[in-house]
Amino acid sequence: MSPSLVTNNGDVATVKTAPVAGRLAAVYSEVQTSRIDHALPLPSVLRNPFKIVDGPPSSAAGNPDEIAKLFPNLFGQPSAMLVPNGADSIGSDQKLKIGVVLSGGQAPGGHNVISGIFDYLQDCAKGSILYGFRGGPAGIMKCKYVELTADYIYPYRNQGGFDMICSGRDKIETPEQFKQAEETAVKLDLDGLLVIGGDDSNTNACLLAENFRTKNLKTQVIGCPKTIDGDLKCKEVPTSFGFDTACRIYAEMIGNVMIDARSTGKYYHFVRLMGRAASHITLECALQTHPNITIIGEEVAAKKQTLKNVTDYIVDVVCKRAELGYNYGVILIPEGLIDFIPEVQQLIAELNEILAHDIVDENGLWKKKLTDQSLKLFEFLPQAIQEQLMLERDPHGNVQVAKIETEKMLIQMVETELDTRKQAGSYKGQFKGQSHFFGYEGRCGLPTNFDASYCYALGYGAGALLHSGKTGLISSVGNLGTPVEEWTVGGTALTSLMDVERRHGKFKPVIKKAMVELEGAPFKKFSSMREEWALKNCYISPGPIQFVGPVSNAVNHTLLLELGAQA
Amino acid sequence: MSPSLVTNNGDVATVKTAPVAGRLAAVYSEVQTSRIDHALPLPSVLRNPFKIVDGPPSSAAGNPDEIAKLFPNLFGQPSAMLVPNGADSIGSDQKLKIGVVLSGGQAPGGHNVISGIFDYLQDCAKGSILYGFRGGPAGIMKCKYVELTADYIYPYRNQGGFDMICSGRDKIETPEQFKQAEETAVKLDLDGLLVIGGDDSNTNACLLAENFRTKNLKTQVIGCPKTIDGDLKCKEVPTSFGFDTACRIYAEMIGNVMIDARSTGKYYHFVRLMGRAASHITLECALQTHPNITIIGEEVAAKKQTLKNVTDYIVDVVCKRAELGYNYGVILIPEGLIDFIPEVQQLIAELNEILAHDIVDENGLWKKKLTDQSLKLFEFLPQAIQEQLMLERDPHGNVQVAKIETEKMLIQMVETELDTRKQAGSYKGQFKGQSHFFGYEGRCGLPTNFDASYCYALGYGAGALLHSGKTGLISSVGNLGTPVEEWTVGGTALTSLMDVERRHGKFKPVIKKAMVELEGAPFKKFSSMREEWALKNCYISPGPIQFVGPVSNAVNHTLLLELGAQA
Repeated sequence: MSPSLVTNNGDVATVKTAPVAGRLAAVYSEVQTSRIDHALPLPSVLRNPFKIVDGPPSSAAGNPDEIAKLFPNLFGQPSAMLVPNGADSIGSDQKLKIGVVLSGGQAPGGHNVISGIFDYLQDCAKGSILYGFRGGPAGIMKCKYVELTADYIYPYRNQGGFDMICSGRDKIETPEQFKQAEETAVKLDLDGLLVIGGDDSNTNACLLAENFRTKNLKTQVIGCPKTIDGDLKCKEVPTSFGFDTACRIYAEMIGNVMIDARSTGKYYHFVRLMGRAASHITLECALQTHPNITIIGEEVAAKKQTLKNVTDYIVDVVCKRAELGYNYGVILIPEGLIDFIPEVQQLIAELNEILAHDIVDENGLWKKKLTDQSLKLFEFLPQAIQEQLMLERDPHGNVQVAKIETEKMLIQMVETELDTRKQAGSYKGQFKGQSHFFGYEGRCGLPTNFDASYCYALGYGAGALLHSGKTGLISSVGNLGTPVEEWTVGGTALTSLMDVERRHGKFKPVIKKAMVELEGAPFKKFSSMREEWALKNCYISPGPIQFVGPVSNAVNHTLLLELGAQA
Repeated sequence: MSPSLVTNNGDVATVKTAPVAGRLAAVYSEVQTSRIDHALPLPSVLRNPFKIVDGPPSSAAGNPDEIAKLFPNLFGQPSAMLVPNGADSIGSDQKLKIGVVLSGGQAPGGHNVISGIFDYLQDCAKGSILYGFRGGPAGIMKCKYVELTADYIYPYRNQGGFDMICSGRDKIETPEQFKQAEETAVKLDLDGLLVIGGDDSNTNACLLAENFRTKNLKTQVIGCPKTIDGDLKCKEVPTSFGFDTACRIYAEMIGNVMIDARSTGKYYHFVRLMGRAASHITLECALQTHPNITIIGEEVAAKKQTLKNVTDYIVDVVCKRAELGYNYGVILIPEGLIDFIPEVQQLIAELNEILAHDIVDENGLWKKKLTDQSLKLFEFLPQAIQEQLMLERDPHGNVQVAKIETEKMLIQMVETELDTRKQAGSYKGQFKGQSHFFGYEGRCGLPTNFDASYCYALGYGAGALLHSGKTGLISSVGNLGTPVEEWTVGGTALTSLMDVERRHGKFKPVIKKAMVELEGAPFKKFSSMREEWALKNCYISPGPIQFVGPVSNAVNHTLLLELGAQA
């Protein structure tokens, strides 16, 4: 039976097999339809019989003794590398039962990881079953799942979003929750579990792997590096998936806004970009588009800058540009900027305490509990930002930085400082700020060819790792600066990415977020060019993502520069 | 000499001739570079010798007697149509001096109109000169221009923005200003002027044409329909350029946000879209993406809805969706929504009066000047919106609707109403609103293949009209539902698009904005489907604009539906 997807224009695109649920009723655009049948290249090592070769024992990113105590079964595991194996492939007769789960925020390519592991099982372990846990880790705990078939998966190939099985932000943390996960593993007779997520989710994956080993369950756990923020990476995991697509979507919009700025000649566009903890997205977008000003949170933190410092830096550039006759520009700001500013961190910490324990009275008596410095900063902030800082906390008790309109705050602060300079006679230009926030638009776009291929290889490789009995590894695909067929495939010990943090008197394992390195190649490239970008107009407009043609297989600057620096 | 553009990756793209200014120093992305050499197809009538055939005398859109009085030289002009002419083309020996000006806000494709008229002059009137007036109509009045050469134009081919010669919002209105325009026309010995602009600019073009005739100047004036808003169109001018590209850029973002909404399952995305006067952009984006709720300003006005009505409509859908288990959705709102709501118009009119003549005191005594109804509405509005309504007026004394965050206002009003229903027990869902404004991102994108070809034909055709002695026409390219080679090319009497408005006791000519017709095919298609879209999730994600491949030459829904209804 060969049912059909109806395209937007009423044309009928034949679908190979019948979708039985999920996007069954979906009407696809022509581009979506064209993407379903986009052929996914595999690294050559996955296209031929391969075996797995272990490397030397691993350690940890920090505090190896504590990590060894926390992961007695898994600590020290070697990395695994797939290599060609003449005629025979690994464990070809074994049928597997595997579960897969999406954890945390969306990133373009998640569906392709699932397609990848599914195809591995079809190709190399016929008769295997793939379960998709619904709604994130909660799906594991509640044993809420769907059996993923070729029909079910087909319409999601190369498509954005996580809606095939949806995601969630729950964690498996307490003994009861681990118990629930064990019950599900036993009930479904799971040989393996693939956890697709960010740093927290991969830490959790490793804890699960350790726990299953401790309980003598056969269920192996493999992680997969997902986050548009790009802050889950190390030497063997050169990038997290979704980063490439999200940056290209944001860069398209930034490039358009730049042409608008240059054409109109009268606006400063302040663009806030998603990326809470690290400023990789902002840096990559800067490298793609050459804005006049780019604020990198890690640099602000390293230089212990204040909000006033950041404002003054912007105002200085605005004034110099005005002298050159340019009363317009484009400024990129990372979403998490205020988290990087020590004085703001201090203020937020005090506000968290007050909000948790005190009554915030309308007369503002509560402000007396602030330290002088924090009170001064609070009063210095525009009113809208004051209100946003007082909004409800997220489930972890943190300020929801995505809700703080840093770009508008900076516009107001820049306006105020420019007024002062105007009165002092040192600025004679015109200033009009326009604010933008590019966030949700980038998380669920159609994956670029890079992310589509990378995710497919990550998923396919994860299947091979599980099939060969590996656990506690993160799927690792390398050599990404070369054509897909030359990519390397393997797994890296999750414990080797870990350090510990002390929370509530206990050591907790964490995969440290990979921050923008001020000595790294991407930042150095940026910092070598930013003065030129500030005063000249070197704007680049990357245009919309192309899926066919010579420009469709480019690799992002951050990755290329980091690979180049490694080489 | 063959200089080069440096691409983003350091590759060098050879440029045929040396750019001497403008984007001389520009570094291009690979997509931008690939677009420069994109071959522009011409309608077959322009590729072979043609002549111009006049139609029957025209009238006016309204009040023909008044229009006849205002345009004694031009009223009643026939439409002109280009038709094949065996061997000879028109006026092949005459060298022309032509000026071109961009007027008003950017729209993707403007550079191609200029490329089109330039190529016409090269092909059919060798030795002609094309002057680009800088910075809009002010460039005409101040005689600020650049001579456009092949070298100068080349890097702008198929590129977004208006930065080749920039634009401006000045009008040529007063006798002194007309005098300045005459002086420029005489000084440069202009045979013709091409005015690329929206409804106001084309009205202005016609007044200039009439004035030049009256003064016995040889300078002819041709207009060209530009506006992303899509509200400058009639039977012979099926669409304005830029609309197609802008809608596709917005629809890409909306489609991404929809996938995000479905994947996350917890946000209502309120998306405000550019388009002040008419809701064509919002309607087209709805047809491309199938959101749950779409507010069309013209319908709100026709039904004399209040803000409360609009809020209740949204809340009703949110409640029904909650019962189906969907606590997420996507809602499209036209930028100009509040302009369509009679009670808000009344409030704004009163505020305009107060702001123009009274002191707005901090104690709010000024509010006593509002009528009871307006005061009640004002107090009903969220505080941020109250403040935005009090902001500085634009040069025409209008509220700057682009600065009013209607999407946030609606989120707050929906929240309030949902709280009420929750307390009454009629709503048990969760509601989280996320606001978006897609505007500047769409005005300067790389033109779609449709806009690139359409603009090129508009410009090339305008050259033919000027070459054959026409004035007071708007360049008209038709039959747009067919392949480019079958497009028709001609000109339509600008007076035939006009009506009069009475301002300050005088009749002023205006080209009426083409609003969304509630009986038109696009709205009817939308209204026949919106109930299904509201409760089911029929989201379509159009994906990024593609420049090559089978999906790159699609035509937008509004145009296709209107052409279909005409046929």
